[in-house]
Amino acid sequence: MTNLYIDQIIKTALNEDINFLDITTDYLIEETSVSTADFLAKSDGILCGIDIALRVLKLLDSNIEFEKHKNDGDEIKKGDIIAQVRGNTRSILKGERTALNFVQHLSGVATATHKAVKLVEGTKAVIADTRKPLPGLRVLQKYAVVCGGGKNHRFNLSDAAMIKDNHIDACGGIARAVEKLREKAGHMVKIEVETRNLDEVREALKAGADVIMLDNMDCETMRQAVEIVGSRALVEASGGITDESLREVAETGVDIISIGALTHSVKALDISLKISRKFV
Amino acid sequence: MTNLYIDQIIKTALNEDINFLDITTDYLIEETSVSTADFLAKSDGILCGIDIALRVLKLLDSNIEFEKHKNDGDEIKKGDIIAQVRGNTRSILKGERTALNFVQHLSGVATATHKAVKLVEGTKAVIADTRKPLPGLRVLQKYAVVCGGGKNHRFNLSDAAMIKDNHIDACGGIARAVEKLREKAGHMVKIEVETRNLDEVREALKAGADVIMLDNMDCETMRQAVEIVGSRALVEASGGITDESLREVAETGVDIISIGALTHSVKALDISLKISRKFV
Amino acid sequence: MTNLYIDQIIKTALNEDINFLDITTDYLIEETSVSTADFLAKSDGILCGIDIALRVLKLLDSNIEFEKHKNDGDEIKKGDIIAQVRGNTRSILKGERTALNFVQHLSGVATATHKAVKLVEGTKAVIADTRKPLPGLRVLQKYAVVCGGGKNHRFNLSDAAMIKDNHIDACGGIARAVEKLREKAGHMVKIEVETRNLDEVREALKAGADVIMLDNMDCETMRQAVEIVGSRALVEASGGITDESLREVAETGVDIISIGALTHSVKALDISLKISRKFV
Amino acid sequence: MTNLYIDQIIKTALNEDINFLDITTDYLIEETSVSTADFLAKSDGILCGIDIALRVLKLLDSNIEFEKHKNDGDEIKKGDIIAQVRGNTRSILKGERTALNFVQHLSGVATATHKAVKLVEGTKAVIADTRKPLPGLRVLQKYAVVCGGGKNHRFNLSDAAMIKDNHIDACGGIARAVEKLREKAGHMVKIEVETRNLDEVREALKAGADVIMLDNMDCETMRQAVEIVGSRALVEASGGITDESLREVAETGVDIISIGALTHSVKALDISLKISRKFV
Amino acid sequence: MTNLYIDQIIKTALNEDINFLDITTDYLIEETSVSTADFLAKSDGILCGIDIALRVLKLLDSNIEFEKHKNDGDEIKKGDIIAQVRGNTRSILKGERTALNFVQHLSGVATATHKAVKLVEGTKAVIADTRKPLPGLRVLQKYAVVCGGGKNHRFNLSDAAMIKDNHIDACGGIARAVEKLREKAGHMVKIEVETRNLDEVREALKAGADVIMLDNMDCETMRQAVEIVGSRALVEASGGITDESLREVAETGVDIISIGALTHSVKALDISLKISRKFV
Amino acid sequence: MTNLYIDQIIKTALNEDINFLDITTDYLIEETSVSTADFLAKSDGILCGIDIALRVLKLLDSNIEFEKHKNDGDEIKKGDIIAQVRGNTRSILKGERTALNFVQHLSGVATATHKAVKLVEGTKAVIADTRKPLPGLRVLQKYAVVCGGGKNHRFNLSDAAMIKDNHIDACGGIARAVEKLREKAGHMVKIEVETRNLDEVREALKAGADVIMLDNMDCETMRQAVEIVGSRALVEASGGITDESLREVAETGVDIISIGALTHSVKALDISLKISRKFV
Repeated sequence: MTNLYIDQIIKTALNEDINFLDITTDYLIEETSVSTADFLAKSDGILCGIDIALRVLKLLDSNIEFEKHKNDGDEIKKGDIIAQVRGNTRSILKGERTALNFVQHLSGVATATHKAVKLVEGTKAVIADTRKPLPGLRVLQKYAVVCGGGKNHRFNLSDAAMIKDNHIDACGGIARAVEKLREKAGHMVKIEVETRNLDEVREALKAGADVIMLDNMDCETMRQAVEIVGSRALVEASGGITDESLREVAETGVDIISIGALTHSVKALDISLKISRKFV
Repeated sequence: MTNLYIDQIIKTALNEDINFLDITTDYLIEETSVSTADFLAKSDGILCGIDIALRVLKLLDSNIEFEKHKNDGDEIKKGDIIAQVRGNTRSILKGERTALNFVQHLSGVATATHKAVKLVEGTKAVIADTRKPLPGLRVLQKYAVVCGGGKNHRFNLSDAAMIKDNHIDACGGIARAVEKLREKAGHMVKIEVETRNLDEVREALKAGADVIMLDNMDCETMRQAVEIVGSRALVEASGGITDESLREVAETGVDIISIGALTHSVKALDISLKISRKFV
Repeated sequence: MTNLYIDQIIKTALNEDINFLDITTDYLIEETSVSTADFLAKSDGILCGIDIALRVLKLLDSNIEFEKHKNDGDEIKKGDIIAQVRGNTRSILKGERTALNFVQHLSGVATATHKAVKLVEGTKAVIADTRKPLPGLRVLQKYAVVCGGGKNHRFNLSDAAMIKDNHIDACGGIARAVEKLREKAGHMVKIEVETRNLDEVREALKAGADVIMLDNMDCETMRQAVEIVGSRALVEASGGITDESLREVAETGVDIISIGALTHSVKALDISLKISRKFV
Repeated sequence: MTNLYIDQIIKTALNEDINFLDITTDYLIEETSVSTADFLAKSDGILCGIDIALRVLKLLDSNIEFEKHKNDGDEIKKGDIIAQVRGNTRSILKGERTALNFVQHLSGVATATHKAVKLVEGTKAVIADTRKPLPGLRVLQKYAVVCGGGKNHRFNLSDAAMIKDNHIDACGGIARAVEKLREKAGHMVKIEVETRNLDEVREALKAGADVIMLDNMDCETMRQAVEIVGSRALVEASGGITDESLREVAETGVDIISIGALTHSVKALDISLKISRKFV
Repeated sequence: MTNLYIDQIIKTALNEDINFLDITTDYLIEETSVSTADFLAKSDGILCGIDIALRVLKLLDSNIEFEKHKNDGDEIKKGDIIAQVRGNTRSILKGERTALNFVQHLSGVATATHKAVKLVEGTKAVIADTRKPLPGLRVLQKYAVVCGGGKNHRFNLSDAAMIKDNHIDACGGIARAVEKLREKAGHMVKIEVETRNLDEVREALKAGADVIMLDNMDCETMRQAVEIVGSRALVEASGGITDESLREVAETGVDIISIGALTHSVKALDISLKISRKFV
Repeated sequence: MTNLYIDQIIKTALNEDINFLDITTDYLIEETSVSTADFLAKSDGILCGIDIALRVLKLLDSNIEFEKHKNDGDEIKKGDIIAQVRGNTRSILKGERTALNFVQHLSGVATATHKAVKLVEGTKAVIADTRKPLPGLRVLQKYAVVCGGGKNHRFNLSDAAMIKDNHIDACGGIARAVEKLREKAGHMVKIEVETRNLDEVREALKAGADVIMLDNMDCETMRQAVEIVGSRALVEASGGITDESLREVAETGVDIISIGALTHSVKALDISLKISRKFV
């Protein structure tokens, strides 16, 4: 992840956390004090956001140096030292919380994604995100999904088409909706149709949809849908899929399982930044 | 929440979700189509962010009109109609997901906070957030904590002092650290000291701390700490407190219980926006 | 085009043209003077950007009123009154040039696109833009291409794949490159392969490319390529196509003709804003 | 051109072209691959924007190194290597199009300006731009005009006065308009008057205008105007001047010829970035 | 002053003063409380910034209404009611300080300018500002100088030329410096030369400077300089001029007196916002 | 002061002062010319903003080098060399004015603060700022107050509570207002009550205010107030305190004296940047 794409959100986050003065640190720690500190895994998971966390410190103080032991996408175990930083103690303490807020959240996304990927292992299903990331964090969360082994669904409303019930009603049927889009949309646009029953699946298939979404169907219906489609389009399962139901859904033979919770209901992964040595 | 404080993050979110064209909606829905749509609760909880969700639509299309039936801070039940909007169908469909992303997330924060508040009811403990909100969402999440009945801890590093182990080491003890801060910091700054055992609690009390944090202590130790302090300072419990342990912690007599998970590990509340009538 | 997507670039343009004072107008025109003025076509073409031009005036002075006689996408003839505005004379004069700069440029893009579309009429070819819009103007120029009857190629590097020679070399062949992308990219991503000869066309077809670009080929070769592909993929002609060669290219049977000059070499369309009546 | 003045527009352009992922390059090129690449002139002209193009790459990847062989303002011939870059292959490929969009456009402006300058060589006329640059690109285009040997007219409405018909009408004549401006405007402001016939030229001269613009006059009239003025003010020809008429206009003896098309109707100069060697 | 040019600095100021919560007001004043309040002059001076102050309130709360009794540029006397506002009490109290910070500062600039203008009344000297406004406030302060009856010197380094000692040394003399600038700079650029003695005045005059600055000269020397120049150029006095010396400087016959202190050393004018009636 | 917190305001200031071209310097000074220059104190005072001034030059030209002889907070005497810079002459001349505008203004704030601190030496009173800094300059001015030996009052409306007359009226008395705030505000918030007479002082004390402000009281009343409070709360004097009255106010025994003029009525400290040697 290039600095260009993260500096703005990092600056926003730092400005939320400090006006210019860390009252406690600036008044109690010597300006010349130097420390080393470790980013430490406090539970198991998939790392994501360590480059961003280190960039937080670098933006606060360009003299801070670091050594990374783990990279985004790596598995980490409780007790692992992820990275070590060395530099001005004040700078490290000021940036600590903001740095951790990024890496804990993104590692949370990557870890949940990875868990889902593991659950469907051996099936053909891939795990995908949705258009439900948190406001302002879309780029970072989509990146974290990839670090966790998942894939990105469309980035936004402008790069692929998803025909839903309201669109179908407005056009008078799936066939007409797909046809109209083929006429109007650019040739690089894939078209997905959201279906609620097997009739709609058949209709979407006939209309030439690139991807057919099975919206909140039970597993038996999904199995039939997969059979009907017979690889002539990609089949995506979506809606209310939990860790418990995930394996069964994958075994229906769908190509993609998209899960909003990967980005909208994230549990932070516990990671800390611990001062290991101080040189006054 | 005044528009001034939310328009920027809303614009960021909308720009993440659309460059200028919603391929599906702009090509399939008539430009003149008008609809009404309902924000609908799909599970029980505390509402937060409905003004922001409505503002999302308004920023996309200033002609959209709405009627609110529930306000931020209200309890909502599955099936409740939270608000109704009426306006251009394209605008409603384009803003739907972004609007929901805000209200689902913030209602998730408010609902979790409210649950914690209910769990400690009858004790003197209040529920507070921490300095661990998600990047870019601090203002909104802190607001959601208040909507859920919780209280805001310090907003950032610049408006209150929190003396931790590294600060204490650097000053040679709690007493010296507190004294140094009283000398240097402005007179509107409250001073909190993080303690790890009863000796430190006594030291912090003697040093004149305004607030004493009990960091990751067991309930028995917290009870003793509360007794030692005897209302001469506020006592805050923090660290690894879960829904399961929360009541017991509150019963130790602490004044504040601060919980990072309220903002760093949020489960979205299920809310939808459903087109109820269309006028082509 | 919603205000949300244009206000920023309009503000940038207005700030380029005025610090806060229009020396001539603010010192010579009465503050209370009111005028009507006409946006007037001074040559024939396709209109694009009139909403933006009117928004320029509105942002300078929210009391300005207007009536539109032509819309984006409409043909205009020399002498047509496109829109009439009425309001404070100072505001109209201050916004005039910035408003015209937008509408003249975008109408230039739409007009050139429309000319290309007309030239290929009767063939199956559609006219598309490229990833070569001017810096900062991508959204507006892509919109103008659509107003002119053209279609948008991918918006950017993140929403579709275009495999070029460097990618092919890095992967050891077209087949491997396409396969690797299918594995890694999200399921909503279309894959285009740039080819330089018929062997590569065959290879791309066999590899399952969604779109095959014929890069700088002569018309005879393109005709053979179209035959080889036989509708199993979309075929796009690109590279050095001029108004002179366009018809012949279209008649080779390609599906898409993409033209960088539509956005990188634009001739402004002559439109003026003329004060028609003044009320001091 | 200092980075301070270009980084914002470069970041805008890069963000238009990539969210964070170049699907094709990030998935197909090894992360460690290193290449050298040449900026190559593909037609003759005047170079402008090479520093900006190189800065594009630098902002994407601060480790990229380069060597410039040509500078802004230099003549380039088809086949010339303008600059060579070396660095991470992914970074070079991601920045390629954005870098070229800048340098091709600005070299287009410089080349057209230079052509105009050459056409008037030997006369006293200088070539100037207008207040018609493209939105958001004013600073860059004005710089390109200078690189091409032209001069900048006023930068905007706030740094010089241009009295046009509406101002004259509002004041009741040229004399009164100029007088009023001398009274009110700062002493560093030059005053230009737009005239449509020789009577107005005489009036403007008498009023003490610093510069007299001859608006859309034929050459014979311009010649008379120049004679009337007799060097007591600068004379500027403007309006509908083409490459064909330019020399004749210059020979009327005017001091300045201003041409809107230099910035509003630009033909990009063909320049490419070619990977010359790859080191995997 | 159009909203376009002030909204950004107002938003910056409001965001400095409030994150989203005014602890005191939001927790103690009823949400539905409505008040009227008066902007009240507490000392005599020239008003500037009342539109900005009212815009502060409007940006916080679009429902606030107001009536202006005085306009920017008007003289105000202690006790005058400048404007009355009516609306939500919370909004008025939250915006009060920010609104006052603007109007007090800008009225301070206008009042000091006006005082200087009065001091030179009857002479030909006009009072001008310099390139020393406070960072971020240039547009507002330059506007305030005009409200106070002064004139604006050049806005910045890009719209007029000021040749100082370093430039003269680099060119080998005033004559060469002026000549070089005439060759290179655009034709709308005025040229001022800073001189330190009468020889330099003569040299600048001969070189054809538009304006000759007398830098830190005593009044007798300035009188001689004025005589030497004999209206063939404008003469500007600058450097260390105080209220005490101002009249004498003006009487030397200079055309312009520029004073940095007008914007760099401003004494705020005392204005308050007083709640006059509350309706709960 | 970390770059993160100052770069934005510096860029704003530089963009106010130059579009991209310094007409005089870019056209008269050789591009390759190198100089050394000294920041020179021209009057006595307390330095503040030298890091910002140097950062201005660095942002214009990253190759400029410097050596600091004085730091923010140091006393400087007329004639002192504060810092020396060496680098491209053009860059130094372009940045000179902007750099000086910052350091002169902030040193003005620090110097005035220091003078006040000296005046109260020997008393227990500390000097504090207010919520009246200039728009956009709050962070810098609050920093300058600290450099001058003063202390910061609350940063804004969101980090501490200040109960004024309107709040008291709305709640029906001081006691109720303080109580309501203790209930609702976070536990890190200090509460100050503004009082206008001794009865209110007693009431505020009884209500448990952390700080009691004596608003515009005479010294005798303040003395009594201090006695009444008897160290059970902090006592702050505010309102119309001048250099003349300051000592007497301090001797009443108040803890804090807050002075708005420290930031709203600043006299710039005279500092210059003088080219000491040029190497062409």
